[in-house]
Amino acid sequence: MEIERKGGLFIISAPSGSGKSTVIQQVMEEVKNLSFSVSYTTREPRSGEIHGKDYFFVSEAEFEAMIAADEFLEHARVFDKFWYGTNRRQVETLLHRGQDVIMDIDVQGALQLMVRQDIPHTSIFIIPPDDTELKKRLANRNREGETEIQRRLETAKKEIRSLNSFDFLVINDVLDKAVENVCAIVLAQRLKINRIKNVKQVTNLFNMEDIDD
Amino acid sequence: MEIERKGGLFIISAPSGSGKSTVIQQVMEEVKNLSFSVSYTTREPRSGEIHGKDYFFVSEAEFEAMIAADEFLEHARVFDKFWYGTNRRQVETLLHRGQDVIMDIDVQGALQLMVRQDIPHTSIFIIPPDDTELKKRLANRNREGETEIQRRLETAKKEIRSLNSFDFLVINDVLDKAVENVCAIVLAQRLKINRIKNVKQVTNLFNMEDIDD
Repeated sequence: MEIERKGGLFIISAPSGSGKSTVIQQVMEEVKNLSFSVSYTTREPRSGEIHGKDYFFVSEAEFEAMIAADEFLEHARVFDKFWYGTNRRQVETLLHRGQDVIMDIDVQGALQLMVRQDIPHTSIFIIPPDDTELKKRLANRNREGETEIQRRLETAKKEIRSLNSFDFLVINDVLDKAVENVCAIVLAQRLKINRIKNVKQVTNLFNMEDIDD
Repeated sequence: MEIERKGGLFIISAPSGSGKSTVIQQVMEEVKNLSFSVSYTTREPRSGEIHGKDYFFVSEAEFEAMIAADEFLEHARVFDKFWYGTNRRQVETLLHRGQDVIMDIDVQGALQLMVRQDIPHTSIFIIPPDDTELKKRLANRNREGETEIQRRLETAKKEIRSLNSFDFLVINDVLDKAVENVCAIVLAQRLKINRIKNVKQVTNLFNMEDIDD
């Protein structure tokens, strides 16, 4: 018989250029019973991105109305430009169903969420292997020219200073290895005793009386 | 470059009949840089057991001298008969070298060790899938007759009540799956930020100044 477990929230964050989205995508394919929390954003969809799958793309006005209605678990304006936020109800519904939920979230938003005690979570910080690779990856994306790359590089370094606030560090040098590491973290966290919904379900397997907490 | 990490202590415990030793043996084969802490005991070697590999087999007098000299990290008399104990220096030396250490330890000893704050550890509790399987496994070992089996069964149930004191629960129903789960826990714990020996080693990768703790 399968022991019932509470859903767990995984906060995955990274400076840009870490390859976080690719890692998450592959983890989602490998691990069962794992849901992706789809964020809201005011930025334009990039090519191939799908509304409702990658993000909910909303207008600035819609986003601000959601802030006013306290619908976000966390929200942040990234690079002083676009809003990103996580819908509270969406996450709570999934967790309540016993689903594990992965949040792909910017460092600011992650730091906001991690200080909150009301929602238990596991936080994972993904970084590129070094400075050279970080520069290379930012340049390869090169959507917005040299000044923007430089700016993202500075932000990335600032963000890496937040390292100590996270539970786990995954270095994305070889993609497969990084994916394997995030999968191990998710699977291991499922085995935590405090994830068991009702310890009585375990003691019942052995025809025992109730356990003291 | 490989980030240097502190060694981690894994306390693995289980009621008898859980198949703990077999699980540990296979985990040791699968995971690199994992050392086994060899316990001291006053019981006789079982067939195939090797002194210095499975246990250090010592006399009651030798064991009591070690207790007196405070050489044990934990020790316990199991089933009111034999002493089992873990040599403090052996474990500390391995951890200091950055090795992960697995301790195969009875529930009493585990509970003793887990309340101590001076040695950070991860504790894993292994249980059989249910009552029926527990009885079957105890009967199959059948070294000591019906009365002893009954006694071990009662002890096992009492021990399962300690479940909540551990960090992780692994149900040993299908052996391969149990091994995979323990491996995931060990690998995931290595990725914890607080296992990094010197965070400066990470920031140096990005040519950054020191990080604030």
